[in-house]
Amino acid sequence: MYKQTCTNLLSLSPVEVNKWLDSFDSVITDCDGVLWVYGNVIPGSPETINYLKGMGKSIYFCTNNSTKTRKELLMKGIDLGFNITEEGIIATAHAAASYLKNRNFDKRVYLIGSPGIAQELDAVGIQHTGVGPDVMKAPLGEFMAKHLTIEPNIGAVVVGFDEHFSFPKMTKAASYLSDPKCLFIATNTDERFPMPGMVVPGSGSFVNAIRTCAEREPIVIGKPNPAICQSLIQQKKIIPSRTLMIGDRANTDILLGYNCGFQTLLVGTGIHSLNDVAQWRNSKNPDDKKLIPDVYIPKLGDLLPAILNSITHGRY
Amino acid sequence: MYKQTCTNLLSLSPVEVNKWLDSFDSVITDCDGVLWVYGNVIPGSPETINYLKGMGKSIYFCTNNSTKTRKELLMKGIDLGFNITEEGIIATAHAAASYLKNRNFDKRVYLIGSPGIAQELDAVGIQHTGVGPDVMKAPLGEFMAKHLTIEPNIGAVVVGFDEHFSFPKMTKAASYLSDPKCLFIATNTDERFPMPGMVVPGSGSFVNAIRTCAEREPIVIGKPNPAICQSLIQQKKIIPSRTLMIGDRANTDILLGYNCGFQTLLVGTGIHSLNDVAQWRNSKNPDDKKLIPDVYIPKLGDLLPAILNSITHGRY
Repeated sequence: MYKQTCTNLLSLSPVEVNKWLDSFDSVITDCDGVLWVYGNVIPGSPETINYLKGMGKSIYFCTNNSTKTRKELLMKGIDLGFNITEEGIIATAHAAASYLKNRNFDKRVYLIGSPGIAQELDAVGIQHTGVGPDVMKAPLGEFMAKHLTIEPNIGAVVVGFDEHFSFPKMTKAASYLSDPKCLFIATNTDERFPMPGMVVPGSGSFVNAIRTCAEREPIVIGKPNPAICQSLIQQKKIIPSRTLMIGDRANTDILLGYNCGFQTLLVGTGIHSLNDVAQWRNSKNPDDKKLIPDVYIPKLGDLLPAILNSITHGRY
Repeated sequence: MYKQTCTNLLSLSPVEVNKWLDSFDSVITDCDGVLWVYGNVIPGSPETINYLKGMGKSIYFCTNNSTKTRKELLMKGIDLGFNITEEGIIATAHAAASYLKNRNFDKRVYLIGSPGIAQELDAVGIQHTGVGPDVMKAPLGEFMAKHLTIEPNIGAVVVGFDEHFSFPKMTKAASYLSDPKCLFIATNTDERFPMPGMVVPGSGSFVNAIRTCAEREPIVIGKPNPAICQSLIQQKKIIPSRTLMIGDRANTDILLGYNCGFQTLLVGTGIHSLNDVAQWRNSKNPDDKKLIPDVYIPKLGDLLPAILNSITHGRY
């Protein structure tokens, strides 16, 4: 409807908002930066999502956050006031475990990740090396000679967010990946999470470290890989052209929308802003054009008054 | 003479070897993979280097290894039988310190590296945060709230080889680099060091991790950046067209030669092989062509008999 025009929803007339609302039946929304920031809800997001659900839209949460199980995300969503079910949650920890399960994977996983992904692997019966600290216990030479245990039965290296990322983990991952039969799976490639006064590295930082020393490209499970929404599309739970993807990070959320043929909505409460969109418009790189959303709104909560206004004044 | 033909020196006639020897006055050689592998000398390398020096060639060692000071490299070279002086050693720890010193850098360095680079910074009076372990001491939320100390006076992040690379170090580096005035310096970008049964990550892995979460490009001090040889050229200690660069890693050593207009010799005792050269020949990427050396020899020690034979039978 507004194909990659980055039209500000707040500049539309009530009739136009109404037509836009009628153009999709399903909503897939990113979580962190759209619905909440870490533990804090973004004001207005629950009311907006719940209102869209009340209008009959099917709602899916789709997060690259690999640290949480679907159950944990469900609890968090409910706690923060969202009307959501476990089937409506698409998460990379669960999706990575499903990916391996669907391939009948029967070896062990070398895991760079967090308890959430370990639990999702456990839930489908896939063995793994566990999570937690793995620090240098000796000088480099001694470490390589005595402390570096390379297990024989590792069939995949899975890399997600890991606050205990370390040199020994890098060495083990690269060593396992020197066997071309060993799978290299990344939950996601989000680069970082800027916060006031600090920058928290994202999984993409760990993935790029391993990619460099392994000299291999990973299979990326999360957004923007369309595989993350494949089963929804195949099972005809959503029709791509009538699906709205909402996100704050263009190179994951909006690009997923582009890759799947969804409509796209960028919100300004997270990573990317209208300034970024202006740069992509001016860029000569054709890949940058894929990052431009159809529509934009400063925050998701701004949508609810626009919807209510369109219902009152926007009949067409 | 054999511009990017990857001619095998062992296939040349004594007269051709003699002409080739006459085509350069200076030799810049990589260390690890050409002269030695970790603590072990590669047989024949010292005799060959010392013979070239005896012929009147000036000899320079040029290493991206950021863990050693020039003095340590000098001692190692002498111990392993090389006839070399400290002035003949070009090393990235020393070069990174000189780079900052030459800019009259007067803030503190956040250092991801090893004692060698710390000592080179100390030697030129540049303050830094020190080296060693920095591990997660608390869960992520508590770490960010209580343990993440961001110092106000950091003016540069320097990244070299660091066996204590960790998530807290990544977080600090990325946070400092969110100030655009903070310099981002990488000693080198060597990806990895494959060893029997394991792969040891190189500085390039750490640099790519930081690059991803900082969303910034580093100034790379080491090979293939021609800056590493700039003072030799400016002070007319070497004439580029009459300088031979010897290396085992094409994307650092041979590319440095290409970038500086040196002649190049690839040896087969380290990272890259004739198979790699064959791939670059067939590649459609013009950058890959820069990796093709002028000449090749299986190991540096094979050069000495060829030289001796050319002296006996190769007069022209």
